[in-house]
Amino acid sequence: MKKIADSIRRVGLVANPEKHRVAAVVRRAARILRGLGRRVECDPTTAELVGPGIAVATGLDSLANSNDLLLVFGGDGTMLRIARETAGRRVPILGVNAGNLGFLTAVKAPDLGTALRKVVGGRFTIEDRALLEAVIQRGAEKTTQTALNDFVLSRGLASRLIELEVAVNGELLTRYRCDGLIASSPTGSTAYSLAAGGAIVSPDADVLTLTPICPHTLSIRPVVVNLNSEVTVKLLSRRLVATLAADGQQQTELSAGDTVVIRKSPSSVRLLRPEGTTFFSTLREKFAWNGSNI
Amino acid sequence: MKKIADSIRRVGLVANPEKHRVAAVVRRAARILRGLGRRVECDPTTAELVGPGIAVATGLDSLANSNDLLLVFGGDGTMLRIARETAGRRVPILGVNAGNLGFLTAVKAPDLGTALRKVVGGRFTIEDRALLEAVIQRGAEKTTQTALNDFVLSRGLASRLIELEVAVNGELLTRYRCDGLIASSPTGSTAYSLAAGGAIVSPDADVLTLTPICPHTLSIRPVVVNLNSEVTVKLLSRRLVATLAADGQQQTELSAGDTVVIRKSPSSVRLLRPEGTTFFSTLREKFAWNGSNI
Amino acid sequence: MKKIADSIRRVGLVANPEKHRVAAVVRRAARILRGLGRRVECDPTTAELVGPGIAVATGLDSLANSNDLLLVFGGDGTMLRIARETAGRRVPILGVNAGNLGFLTAVKAPDLGTALRKVVGGRFTIEDRALLEAVIQRGAEKTTQTALNDFVLSRGLASRLIELEVAVNGELLTRYRCDGLIASSPTGSTAYSLAAGGAIVSPDADVLTLTPICPHTLSIRPVVVNLNSEVTVKLLSRRLVATLAADGQQQTELSAGDTVVIRKSPSSVRLLRPEGTTFFSTLREKFAWNGSNI
Amino acid sequence: MKKIADSIRRVGLVANPEKHRVAAVVRRAARILRGLGRRVECDPTTAELVGPGIAVATGLDSLANSNDLLLVFGGDGTMLRIARETAGRRVPILGVNAGNLGFLTAVKAPDLGTALRKVVGGRFTIEDRALLEAVIQRGAEKTTQTALNDFVLSRGLASRLIELEVAVNGELLTRYRCDGLIASSPTGSTAYSLAAGGAIVSPDADVLTLTPICPHTLSIRPVVVNLNSEVTVKLLSRRLVATLAADGQQQTELSAGDTVVIRKSPSSVRLLRPEGTTFFSTLREKFAWNGSNI
Repeated sequence: MKKIADSIRRVGLVANPEKHRVAAVVRRAARILRGLGRRVECDPTTAELVGPGIAVATGLDSLANSNDLLLVFGGDGTMLRIARETAGRRVPILGVNAGNLGFLTAVKAPDLGTALRKVVGGRFTIEDRALLEAVIQRGAEKTTQTALNDFVLSRGLASRLIELEVAVNGELLTRYRCDGLIASSPTGSTAYSLAAGGAIVSPDADVLTLTPICPHTLSIRPVVVNLNSEVTVKLLSRRLVATLAADGQQQTELSAGDTVVIRKSPSSVRLLRPEGTTFFSTLREKFAWNGSNI
Repeated sequence: MKKIADSIRRVGLVANPEKHRVAAVVRRAARILRGLGRRVECDPTTAELVGPGIAVATGLDSLANSNDLLLVFGGDGTMLRIARETAGRRVPILGVNAGNLGFLTAVKAPDLGTALRKVVGGRFTIEDRALLEAVIQRGAEKTTQTALNDFVLSRGLASRLIELEVAVNGELLTRYRCDGLIASSPTGSTAYSLAAGGAIVSPDADVLTLTPICPHTLSIRPVVVNLNSEVTVKLLSRRLVATLAADGQQQTELSAGDTVVIRKSPSSVRLLRPEGTTFFSTLREKFAWNGSNI
Repeated sequence: MKKIADSIRRVGLVANPEKHRVAAVVRRAARILRGLGRRVECDPTTAELVGPGIAVATGLDSLANSNDLLLVFGGDGTMLRIARETAGRRVPILGVNAGNLGFLTAVKAPDLGTALRKVVGGRFTIEDRALLEAVIQRGAEKTTQTALNDFVLSRGLASRLIELEVAVNGELLTRYRCDGLIASSPTGSTAYSLAAGGAIVSPDADVLTLTPICPHTLSIRPVVVNLNSEVTVKLLSRRLVATLAADGQQQTELSAGDTVVIRKSPSSVRLLRPEGTTFFSTLREKFAWNGSNI
Repeated sequence: MKKIADSIRRVGLVANPEKHRVAAVVRRAARILRGLGRRVECDPTTAELVGPGIAVATGLDSLANSNDLLLVFGGDGTMLRIARETAGRRVPILGVNAGNLGFLTAVKAPDLGTALRKVVGGRFTIEDRALLEAVIQRGAEKTTQTALNDFVLSRGLASRLIELEVAVNGELLTRYRCDGLIASSPTGSTAYSLAAGGAIVSPDADVLTLTPICPHTLSIRPVVVNLNSEVTVKLLSRRLVATLAADGQQQTELSAGDTVVIRKSPSSVRLLRPEGTTFFSTLREKFAWNGSNI
């Protein structure tokens, strides 16, 4: 985590078009930023949502290239999509959440004014978050997916379980009989992996977590490996359909014999975080760690 | 993990004196090594255990300094003690287990001959394993402990629970109400931390795991941080006695207000591993991962 | 668990037709039983598998009605199917497993002779195992399913999660956001529920276990209620497809607003167990509880 | 759970003398109850705490015998002590908590007036909660302890672990190598057992839960047995000291070879619960089950 006094002069606005209440928050952000002397711009989809009054870029690509910050309005799901779609760009992104605090959306709508003044005043940090990539190989054909949180291989609906063989850097780790397997980045450790029993990983720990879902071997546990490892997953089950999901959003169907290689992506995502909140403070707030239940 | 073609010419032998059956295994090792043209030597305690016939060093220190390898006969507990006592030396150590395979004892007694021939023939790898250190501060007084597996802060016998405040690099993580807290190195991740619900950490992942024991807040989970972090634990409970244990062996009593700083030690331990077994193969064998229970 | 000196004179044989190796085991069983002066009979599907030489009943129904014992050849999956299909009959069933020991298949093929001599000699116990029933209500339409192990409500393939509202005896328990929910009988406690984090339930404990799969609320835990409870599960998620599976075998598609009522079935299943193995001994053997991993 | 229209005319007041702030709450309760035409009385320790103005019984025994309800002021710990000390009496108890809602303390101090009017008006239910008893046998000597929540066998401070052999109704369950073992009543299932990974048990489920603490065998899981079972625990570890704690309060030291028999006590405890709160509503409130963390 490095504090960078980059000057934020031009701000791109991107909203999840399915969250209709978001329009007012976007307009408010535009007003505040202009009041602070900043130029604002949005992508065509957001323009349609919020109506006239904000300059419109030709697309998300152009928005990412010509601004110093992308403000993303929506939930963690929206942030995951924008993170994947702008992967490898220099522009940092900052999530504004209409609802609850999220791990990726550092600003709640009511705190928007305070947060934007901090950002404009240079009081923020920027974290480089690792992305993962998965190369799916079927015979000679290869396709690549990118994820910020996780890749999940899971059994199809008609199957009772999935059988996977996993190797790390070419060496057999184990075979899993399970509902699925989650390969999670540090960022994804507080998402699906956590629900499946994985540990919480600090953003500064360079590891990949392999968390099985409902493994049928009782002594199996989540395994944490170096983030530079290459994890090869081979689908063993015959007759069964399985899927690979990137961030729970993009699904690819797999067949027996297919191989998926998961590793750190050469690209990363830059998250901007206004001064005052941290990964640990978000943990304590979202998980209600202040209380004792027993 | 680096393959190093160091020549092993002189071998020091150290045995756990409480394991009487070990004497025959030590004598066998000496015979094999001499047959392979190697010089052997043991420390005074081991000499007493195995009887005359092996050269005796003046102590463990001298043994560690004048040999190319220490062969340690005993269980993981013996390895932990020797690792701490020889911390920072260049000499690698190799554990020989009379009983079950251990994560630290790479050789089972029946495989001794094969293993020693590999070692002498240069077919081995050497892994640098991180040690942890804990600085206990009470007022102006400071004492330091070293551990290979873990430090465990736990409630005293008469106490129902312990209250701890934990900061990472000076920033509050959370307060725990629990039976205890385990700060584990990657090496210790398959020991007590695993029994308490922690993840398995590959030796090449540079992380420290904080695993609470029976936390009274149901949403608390193990947290994995960068191995270069400084973890400060403050004992909050009044009237309660607590203890700090290094590798479950060396115990220090703590009082309310005491602070323990845990971080990576400047020293490390060099583990020699004969060709053919790996961390993953040990996992599969010890944890019976080949079977499905359900 | 009651010891009953019922005389076993007529034995019905049922095999899983997909397990071709089973044919020889069935023929061996028939030979042994005839040698012990017992009459044997099989259902048409099994007859096709094993060839001529064994009397053929008109169907599973007739087989269940006219015999003192059903010998079932296959795995736990086969036992689950036969248990559901013969639910409410007086005839006890005994599973013979070609492969591994199962919780429902008390006899391994190599032990067949010994086991059958015990059975014929009256050295066995019979346990009544509770069945569950699920009534699926969509508007005015109702359908009923039966299960020995469990009912599982789970998210469809395209959904990221499922939202369920659960009431016990008409009182709200909680809402779950999860991958699914398992309602398990004591018999099913060592199956899917265990893989999802549920406790092991002894056959003599009259309880129903509600085990969520990957719940998104970290403080959620499995809940054990009286086996006479009526559990109502309402599917809240809009736009999402969900399924209800009985014993992981029979699947029913559910829509938002559908209600599933799960309770103890009026029918039960009678499991015969030859003297010498028990639920606890099966636990110790299948789960390798004799060893210590740490 | 039965609704009983017992008339509550005489109320005994008992407070935890270590909670000084409790005095004002006790005086307030006395005032309200007298205003509702009820007679109040307290035990000598409580009298000392609250000062003159309330009739004083000769002791807790007499207070329990001559009143229709005991109002207990303190936390769950105080309720556990009073429950054990008045075990087997007809008088129901009702806990009033100065701080947080507890599973045993159904009334929070600010709600005292409303709750007492419900009680006096007959709007309450009374639940019989099972107590456990433990018979400790050392040679010919036997001592008996009682607990409402749980018995915990745990390792002494100097020991790394404890080895226990557990039989249920005379049949071996397994041997545990662990930090300890919790035998929990349904009431205790939301206390220490839950922190150690046990399931939540509804008060109407007649089961005993055996939850190991940090077991060294990774496939070990909590086991739920019939509440009428007799659980025999034998301490195997040589040289090690262990303790038995009743409700985390009364400790007995154990030695190798000692045997502890745990079973349902012939006595039970009667908990009064004012209309409007239930076990499930307490679960949802205390465990924050309304929120989703992921």
